[in-house]
Amino acid sequence: MSRDIVLYIASSLDGYIARVNGAVDWLNESEGSPGVESSYDAFYSTVDTVIMGRNTYNQITRELSPGYWVYEGKKCYVATRENLKPDGLVEFISDDIVEFAKELKGQDGSDIWLVGGSKLVDQFVKQNLIDKYIVTIIPTILGEGIPLFVKGNPEIKLKLTNVVEFDGMVELTYVKKI
Amino acid sequence: MSRDIVLYIASSLDGYIARVNGAVDWLNESEGSPGVESSYDAFYSTVDTVIMGRNTYNQITRELSPGYWVYEGKKCYVATRENLKPDGLVEFISDDIVEFAKELKGQDGSDIWLVGGSKLVDQFVKQNLIDKYIVTIIPTILGEGIPLFVKGNPEIKLKLTNVVEFDGMVELTYVKKI
Repeated sequence: MSRDIVLYIASSLDGYIARVNGAVDWLNESEGSPGVESSYDAFYSTVDTVIMGRNTYNQITRELSPGYWVYEGKKCYVATRENLKPDGLVEFISDDIVEFAKELKGQDGSDIWLVGGSKLVDQFVKQNLIDKYIVTIIPTILGEGIPLFVKGNPEIKLKLTNVVEFDGMVELTYVKKI
Repeated sequence: MSRDIVLYIASSLDGYIARVNGAVDWLNESEGSPGVESSYDAFYSTVDTVIMGRNTYNQITRELSPGYWVYEGKKCYVATRENLKPDGLVEFISDDIVEFAKELKGQDGSDIWLVGGSKLVDQFVKQNLIDKYIVTIIPTILGEGIPLFVKGNPEIKLKLTNVVEFDGMVELTYVKKI
């Protein structure tokens, strides 16, 4: 069985993954119900590889989690147009990231997490290369921001395989319908 | 207790309520699981009034349900710029529909269903006048179409009050957080 490319991401009810300036402060306004946990840990254990865009990488390392690499222990790839050497945390991919991911998918391993951001995700949706969509809907209409789905995708039929409600949010899992 | 203005609508995973040309054929591709029903009947009994835009009215009466008025027994208002007489099915409202709805909300009655389409819904979201959002997510990435939420809304915090999975779809109910 081949490994899946999985989009695991949070979105506002109106489909944004970040504010226009990239800020994700609004993601964390949970109600903090005790004993209720997201599926993050369970999901995280199913992947051995993460792929993200350069802006996301910069945001994680410079703003969200400076001084601590959150994906320690996973094979990490960052899509960028620049030709950069590995920095000890990640490998920078300046070739076509979609082709690169297709090759990864042909190799042995656990699932591959498509972390974001929007531009990276868009390339994969446009080519219908995402095997599983796990979208957590945040109970907020953000009004404007960076969209999860950019216009002009192919029509893709999905199958809902799981629904988990936690802490005011709801996590929806879909797989591609074959 | 005052009556609520309720948006009860279906959306693709990527946030569209219709194709670019208005078509809603993709809404009906359910899996037809026996014994599993949507909450439509239960919801429908909670409203005594429906409000829709002129395009939606035309689509219902000319394409989706010609010869049979689907909202029989409810008080029906259609927002339109033209000054039209009641046609026996609905009353046409050429005044500001938002102000009209505010007046309705101040009167006694059951809840008010905001049927659509996008332009009408947008006016209500922009003024944060929707008390309850019931959005059924269809397991399809449509790619392009008429959006449920148009850019430029205020930031609105919601509270998730119900999640119902049926027939491959999931219905999410939110109320305005006060």
